[in-house]
Amino acid sequence: MKKLYALIAFLGFSIFAFAEGDGGGHGDPYSSEFLAVFLVLSAAVIGRFIARKLNQSEVLGELIIGILIGALGYQLGNEVIVTIRHTNEINAVLSHLSDESISWDDNIKAQLMSLDLPEKVETKLNDLMTSGHFQNTFLNANYTMLFSSLGVTLLLFMVGLEVSIEEMINMGGSSIVVAVLGVVFPFALGYLGMHFFVPEGADDNIAIFVGATLAATSIGITARVFKDAHKIHLKEAKLVLGAAVIDDILGLILLAIVSGVVSSGSLEVSQLAIIIGKSLGFLVGVFFLEKYFLRRNIRTFSKVAGGNTLLLYPFALLMFLAWAADFIGLATIVGAFAAGLILKDDMFEGIKKEGQNLETILSPLEAVFAPVFFVLMGFQVDITTFAEWHVLSVGLGLTVVAAAGKILAGVFVKKGYNKLVIGIGLLPRGEVGLIFASIGKGLGVLDADLFSMIIIVVIATTLITPPLLNWALKKVDDTEESQQISQA
Amino acid sequence: MKKLYALIAFLGFSIFAFAEGDGGGHGDPYSSEFLAVFLVLSAAVIGRFIARKLNQSEVLGELIIGILIGALGYQLGNEVIVTIRHTNEINAVLSHLSDESISWDDNIKAQLMSLDLPEKVETKLNDLMTSGHFQNTFLNANYTMLFSSLGVTLLLFMVGLEVSIEEMINMGGSSIVVAVLGVVFPFALGYLGMHFFVPEGADDNIAIFVGATLAATSIGITARVFKDAHKIHLKEAKLVLGAAVIDDILGLILLAIVSGVVSSGSLEVSQLAIIIGKSLGFLVGVFFLEKYFLRRNIRTFSKVAGGNTLLLYPFALLMFLAWAADFIGLATIVGAFAAGLILKDDMFEGIKKEGQNLETILSPLEAVFAPVFFVLMGFQVDITTFAEWHVLSVGLGLTVVAAAGKILAGVFVKKGYNKLVIGIGLLPRGEVGLIFASIGKGLGVLDADLFSMIIIVVIATTLITPPLLNWALKKVDDTEESQQISQA
Repeated sequence: MKKLYALIAFLGFSIFAFAEGDGGGHGDPYSSEFLAVFLVLSAAVIGRFIARKLNQSEVLGELIIGILIGALGYQLGNEVIVTIRHTNEINAVLSHLSDESISWDDNIKAQLMSLDLPEKVETKLNDLMTSGHFQNTFLNANYTMLFSSLGVTLLLFMVGLEVSIEEMINMGGSSIVVAVLGVVFPFALGYLGMHFFVPEGADDNIAIFVGATLAATSIGITARVFKDAHKIHLKEAKLVLGAAVIDDILGLILLAIVSGVVSSGSLEVSQLAIIIGKSLGFLVGVFFLEKYFLRRNIRTFSKVAGGNTLLLYPFALLMFLAWAADFIGLATIVGAFAAGLILKDDMFEGIKKEGQNLETILSPLEAVFAPVFFVLMGFQVDITTFAEWHVLSVGLGLTVVAAAGKILAGVFVKKGYNKLVIGIGLLPRGEVGLIFASIGKGLGVLDADLFSMIIIVVIATTLITPPLLNWALKKVDDTEESQQISQA
Repeated sequence: MKKLYALIAFLGFSIFAFAEGDGGGHGDPYSSEFLAVFLVLSAAVIGRFIARKLNQSEVLGELIIGILIGALGYQLGNEVIVTIRHTNEINAVLSHLSDESISWDDNIKAQLMSLDLPEKVETKLNDLMTSGHFQNTFLNANYTMLFSSLGVTLLLFMVGLEVSIEEMINMGGSSIVVAVLGVVFPFALGYLGMHFFVPEGADDNIAIFVGATLAATSIGITARVFKDAHKIHLKEAKLVLGAAVIDDILGLILLAIVSGVVSSGSLEVSQLAIIIGKSLGFLVGVFFLEKYFLRRNIRTFSKVAGGNTLLLYPFALLMFLAWAADFIGLATIVGAFAAGLILKDDMFEGIKKEGQNLETILSPLEAVFAPVFFVLMGFQVDITTFAEWHVLSVGLGLTVVAAAGKILAGVFVKKGYNKLVIGIGLLPRGEVGLIFASIGKGLGVLDADLFSMIIIVVIATTLITPPLLNWALKKVDDTEESQQISQA
């Protein structure tokens, strides 16, 4: 009970403090952001704790506590949370502000009217933007979203670090087949599903984007279940983890293509060719960088930088490639992943100190900023849409489709593998699905309802994987045992 | 030569890229900030390299490359740099924008006129704010300043970590006497000097603030000189370093008082009492926290957080105390320093892994963000003011006064110490002086001229310390040798 009171007190304080986050008359204009970081990190820690107690993945805990704080804060009119949730609408209003020769308040009202929002939202945003301290609120919301963006960039960089291109090639065909099919099936099923579930005719761009989101596999949760069940040595585990890594790469390429198609607004062959060309060009450029430039550049940098090369070089490269990817029209996370992919510890031989490595030196940055991303994802979920029948039904329908696609991919694995373990292992969408959803929201493809549907898919696939996988693994055990008995 | 070309190419790219940093039509609104971070970090690394080659302190290298890029970028009309330099004026304009019933552009013009700026600046800001993409520029500038603020917060936290209250008490009276006098003399001399150098009558608040800035001692540079000369074991070195640490604390208290006086706009006894009360209250509160709460809270946190307590707890505490200090009217860096001061490695015994400690786990965060602060300090220096006679003369006059104050404090050290080594050891203002100057600029106490004067003091005291100290140390050597000879 005491813990529950403490939790409620914390939530209350968060919401009060966020509301007070308008800067007041204090000296440092950034101090209220420091409070926001404190609150978001505390929330993340509490969310992870609850998830662990319920034997769920920690990412899910961060997301769900974000949903709770977001729902409460939004209802109570917390200005930063309202701004974060309606950032697209607010930016649309702000982009037209200098056009007209009328007062700020009248201008806001006119612009909001033209957006055709629900009346409640319109009133809320009007109050927010004409409050007199909107500038502070807007800055605070954007600072928090900046940290969130930095967090997801660091996260994808760390994922890239863990992947080695050579290892993937050595893994051979089985993983690649499963991975490719594990992307193709959910994408196709998701695309068709959207047209089927939304009979009044879903927009093609939306259907494509939802399909791409369903194609992602989140390696973390599956790896955790295999580990906890002491089954990480199984050949099925290795194949699933390998396929998940390839899925990440295919997913990012798919995301690049889909985002490009959506941004350009058309599905013309010429457009598609340009986008695929860009994506391939970027990847080729990055590998060229690795092969002919990186090692020498690291040596030069270490001479200029003196100490700290192992930290500063990767971080600077990450920032640069994240920007470069965005600059040519790809997602920043594609650049971040690429930066992690091409960097290897042995490039810093003789520069780094004994026992240091890329992962340990960069992980503090990721550990501080990545949780901001997941909590903020929660802030953006409109919990009331879960109660709407079409959101819930389409969300669950998409979950079925997403699961079917991955399990179908498992069927095509070569003989000697347990097909079910592989299909189920690929189920969870986790953080990768969330990242796709946030990009879709940023691009304006996913509205509040679609965003909620995808959150439902992410939560549902992540929740069902551990029990299902444990059940499937037991069957492997039984087969193994019976084989051992018959051999004996 | 090749290196010079490369440097020029880099500077050119930086300025071009910063100017392009208006976001364009790309997907991620934060990607241009990633480029800014890349450029600022690269600039910092290059600045440090040049400083090392010239046997100067690395902080100075970061500051001076910032001044160069800032001067070039400002002349070329780089929008982010213009915004960073004129952030006070821009905020003054923005704070009145919703008042009037006229168009954005007319409003900007009217507000700028009322600020009474030089014509050139007024035109520059008018062009900037009516460019149509000012929102992006403004956000980018603020993001960079947020990272700078985070950097200085982390820096002060790390300084706090290195200081142990017990050690200071054990050091006994000598350090304290020198430290107190080393704050009192430069403060008094700086205050009087401002009234003397600015005969048309300096504002009392300004004189107080400048005096406080001159009181700071920067421990880093002196420690480096002692180390490089293999003299860190001298009793003079220990006394100087001890006194510099106490100076930091006294300086922060003085800063709290002075900022409070300046913000409230008056020097009434009742106001002063409130501010001193707040400062003492905060410090007492923080030590109370340490004594009765911290250890237990860390245990609880580690149970909730699972892993990563050694990173997340200090970072969260830092964010919270930085905000709390600002909330009650002190500087955020006071809270950051306090957070470092009360945390000790042994509080994490049994929680942290073998070989981990607070400093190594938090230093990556500091190493990435602290350089942003020093480069941005450089951006804010208007190099053209250096050519103005009164800025240069008052700046050099203040340098003499600042040096005299510290050397005078050295005279009062007890017998058996080399007074000159101690006085010179306390000379450099370095980063602490810069932090004070940036707060003064933020509060609106220091205008561009005064800011430049203080930068001159910081650069000059930092430049003269190493040669002077080496010269004074040689005399100690001679005395030691003669003593050893007479003893032998």
